[in-house]
Amino acid sequence: MGALRLPALTSIFTSSSSATAARYSPLLPHRSPRFRRLSSANLSAQSTDQKPRVQDKDKDRVITPRSQDFNAWYLDVIANAELADYGPVRGTMVIRPYGYSIWEAIQDYLNVKFKETGHSNMYFPQFIPYSFIEKEASHVEGFSPELALVTIGGGKELEEKLVVRPTSETIVNHMFTQWIHSYRDLPLMINQWANVTRWEMRTKPFIRTLEFLWQEGHTAHATADEAEKEAMQMIDVYTKFAYEQAAIPVIAGRKSRMETFAGASKTYTIEAMMGDKKALQAGTSHNLGQNFSRAFGTQFTDENGLRQHVWQTSWAISTRFVGGIIMTHGDDAGLLLPPWLAPIQVIIIPIWKKDNEKTGVLSTASSVKEILQAAGVKVKIDDSEQKTPGWKFNFYEMKGVPLRIEIGPRDVSSGSVVISRRDVPGKQGKVFGISMEPSTLVPYIKNKLTEVHSSLLERAVLFRDSNIVDVCSYNELKEAISQGKWARGPWSASDSEELKVKEETGATIRCFPFEQPEGPKKCLMTGISADEVAIFAKSY
Amino acid sequence: MGALRLPALTSIFTSSSSATAARYSPLLPHRSPRFRRLSSANLSAQSTDQKPRVQDKDKDRVITPRSQDFNAWYLDVIANAELADYGPVRGTMVIRPYGYSIWEAIQDYLNVKFKETGHSNMYFPQFIPYSFIEKEASHVEGFSPELALVTIGGGKELEEKLVVRPTSETIVNHMFTQWIHSYRDLPLMINQWANVTRWEMRTKPFIRTLEFLWQEGHTAHATADEAEKEAMQMIDVYTKFAYEQAAIPVIAGRKSRMETFAGASKTYTIEAMMGDKKALQAGTSHNLGQNFSRAFGTQFTDENGLRQHVWQTSWAISTRFVGGIIMTHGDDAGLLLPPWLAPIQVIIIPIWKKDNEKTGVLSTASSVKEILQAAGVKVKIDDSEQKTPGWKFNFYEMKGVPLRIEIGPRDVSSGSVVISRRDVPGKQGKVFGISMEPSTLVPYIKNKLTEVHSSLLERAVLFRDSNIVDVCSYNELKEAISQGKWARGPWSASDSEELKVKEETGATIRCFPFEQPEGPKKCLMTGISADEVAIFAKSY
Repeated sequence: MGALRLPALTSIFTSSSSATAARYSPLLPHRSPRFRRLSSANLSAQSTDQKPRVQDKDKDRVITPRSQDFNAWYLDVIANAELADYGPVRGTMVIRPYGYSIWEAIQDYLNVKFKETGHSNMYFPQFIPYSFIEKEASHVEGFSPELALVTIGGGKELEEKLVVRPTSETIVNHMFTQWIHSYRDLPLMINQWANVTRWEMRTKPFIRTLEFLWQEGHTAHATADEAEKEAMQMIDVYTKFAYEQAAIPVIAGRKSRMETFAGASKTYTIEAMMGDKKALQAGTSHNLGQNFSRAFGTQFTDENGLRQHVWQTSWAISTRFVGGIIMTHGDDAGLLLPPWLAPIQVIIIPIWKKDNEKTGVLSTASSVKEILQAAGVKVKIDDSEQKTPGWKFNFYEMKGVPLRIEIGPRDVSSGSVVISRRDVPGKQGKVFGISMEPSTLVPYIKNKLTEVHSSLLERAVLFRDSNIVDVCSYNELKEAISQGKWARGPWSASDSEELKVKEETGATIRCFPFEQPEGPKKCLMTGISADEVAIFAKSY
Repeated sequence: MGALRLPALTSIFTSSSSATAARYSPLLPHRSPRFRRLSSANLSAQSTDQKPRVQDKDKDRVITPRSQDFNAWYLDVIANAELADYGPVRGTMVIRPYGYSIWEAIQDYLNVKFKETGHSNMYFPQFIPYSFIEKEASHVEGFSPELALVTIGGGKELEEKLVVRPTSETIVNHMFTQWIHSYRDLPLMINQWANVTRWEMRTKPFIRTLEFLWQEGHTAHATADEAEKEAMQMIDVYTKFAYEQAAIPVIAGRKSRMETFAGASKTYTIEAMMGDKKALQAGTSHNLGQNFSRAFGTQFTDENGLRQHVWQTSWAISTRFVGGIIMTHGDDAGLLLPPWLAPIQVIIIPIWKKDNEKTGVLSTASSVKEILQAAGVKVKIDDSEQKTPGWKFNFYEMKGVPLRIEIGPRDVSSGSVVISRRDVPGKQGKVFGISMEPSTLVPYIKNKLTEVHSSLLERAVLFRDSNIVDVCSYNELKEAISQGKWARGPWSASDSEELKVKEETGATIRCFPFEQPEGPKKCLMTGISADEVAIFAKSY
């Protein structure tokens, strides 16, 4: 629970030097003295104390610099941007509207892709008889330490404890067994959007929480080959989503046997490099083989009249991905959202000094808003009068809004606007005099959003590639890991040697990437020939 | 659990006479001898028995006639149309893809309305400390018999039991207390889509299940007046939804004090009359007053610098509404879906006999499909060759698809199609020779869908109004209720007299309708003057 208990934060309140550094950092050009900061100290404490706390919301605070304390920065961003807060039960999280709307954007995209690839949504109950979990041997071993159990219902002790779903393979198989009879019922391809519970001891908002939201796909097929194709198809959907929507250059590959999902034959994964160079497993797709169908007797009659066990897959992406977005793109100024997932893609800030300027500026701002909205751009206008334009600049930069449009009296008379990019600070990211004619403005904004996306992706690829070291020996691996980097090297050693690497370096095999270098390879640990390189890294 | 345990069903298997009646009913004109029936006997039994059951799926079965046994008919429809199945834990339900897609249509509509009226989606944890539930006196009284409690987490006994949310007012207020400081933070208007758990003893698919899905809106306001306006606004959103999307002519009104939500000052409700004339509470909106804000200390500083408790509302619609749709519109042939919520609005059945006809029919069918799809119509084509057209006619009627398009070789050459309405059986609902030119077909189909909607609504209004009896005395009330009808009459009597009505007749006050007759009224029970009429009915 260390992370959720608000570790010592180096912020303006505990370390004036860091705050000074942040305040005058060239990366924070608009940091105004009236900047309001909702620091991680404001993430509500996890107590049930009901006394209303008077909070100093309007004090001048800044976000802990990312380079100084990545974890404190992460918590600061979550608090400042109002993405999430702690729930009253240790390890739980409240997802606030701005954070939830990023999740909604993820859902909107994936939901369409799942349906396009032939899956239907449905819903399974979250209470699973305890005996179900015990049916698949490695599944129970993997999940039993993390279970939340309902033992009392309607005022009575239950005869059988109920597991609050940590994942749904067991209950899905119980139902599949009743729905699948012949090969004509296959493939059966479904998905559910749901909450799941895992009793984690070390939690961190979005990344690892006691309860989280996810989608879990479950499919059953007549052949091993079809299941394998499905598992690969879905990791491919996730990979494209990461690159094309989130601008996160994940590395897709296969998990080592030791890191394979409890109950799966093979696990495919997308691994992302966070800003602190730690790896984040951002999505997985499992080829379950016949493990669950044998445990649950999920059989079908094939075309020759023979009874066969089905071949299955499952695959999931969770609210953890929101944490991945924050830790991939964010900077000292706060959040930086990839345009296609940003709840607000363009923020319009009207600027006026004299009362006689106000009407013109506001009506122009609102017509610009309507032009963009009609073109499908997610646009907001902040015309509140309590805050200065400078404060607003900072606020929406901190919120990670990709583009800002400024409209002042001079812009009104010239019929043009000023556009600033969140990802390019200062004058460099600013263009003046863009006509507000719809035929000019709309394509300009859409191109800019595409540009921001490409630029975020390119930056992340550069960062990733400059922090992956090709290694040929265990010593080189240790060296790379100790520098906080990822190590990539040939691997064909045993599980116990994999465990040794983990114990000695803290790094695990993140995956055997699908993209492999050509030519013969020798295992970095044993020197024996190896078929594949593996990527080792410390991870979340 | 009676309902979920599959009560004695009067179907073809237990009563040959009823089956015969159904088979030859004029309402089932296309009932073919090969009609496949997935009867309620096929709703998977609630046991953890894993033995694969060989099911007789292709036997000729029919749905229990609605007039004969409403409950058996309801369960048959749910099983046959594959809307839901029982989960392994008593009282839980698996929502299958066809049933879930009705829920998704409900979500799609309401989600837009909630956002248009200024609400943001977010997510609260489902685990609530037990002590929270105890804070609001009537709330704990209302909910404590229905709670599911987590007592073990991560292998350890928990210090404080956790409630699996039955509703979220308590945890919402705990968080609101931390987020709300001044009048500037108000109104705070949020919604969440979530699962909730209530340990019900008598369950029935969709209508009352141990776990269900819903949306729950929660708002906080600076004044009592604003909260009242919000509660009224949301019951109005629900009312419009029921009429305009679901074709259900609900009666909106205020609950009696005895029927008010545990913790609310006022509860507004929409009450629907099901096909068996029982009432279904289909949605509620609560004015919570300051009950929860006082219990949780949710205060704000007003414009004069004074600390005040916020005024709140909450409102919800759940998967129960899907049950309401089934029981409002369904008939002996099965489900009948209102067009705007139907997962498939138009089913295309290609018909051919000779192989040389097949290509032309299929390509025409698929171009008709594309024309409609492009126009935003939810259309499906069933070109499977295992079943006859007659079988398909029955199958999609049973699934409640509002319109059917038939395309045969003669239609291909004439460039026209045959269109049948689900709600008007036989020749009366059939039109021939509708051109497949997009400029003709698209508006024709859209008009037909609108017509089906209006006709369903009109039929439901007639049914409702012919089954509400205006009563002036308790005897008249008893008479109406004993006939299975609703009784409407002036009421100003006491809680204990209301309870007496419930005990003696089984009917409760469903609501004091917003629409009230003019003129002076005298309480049907006491003869004393009354301000309002109330509606009494037996209910689900």
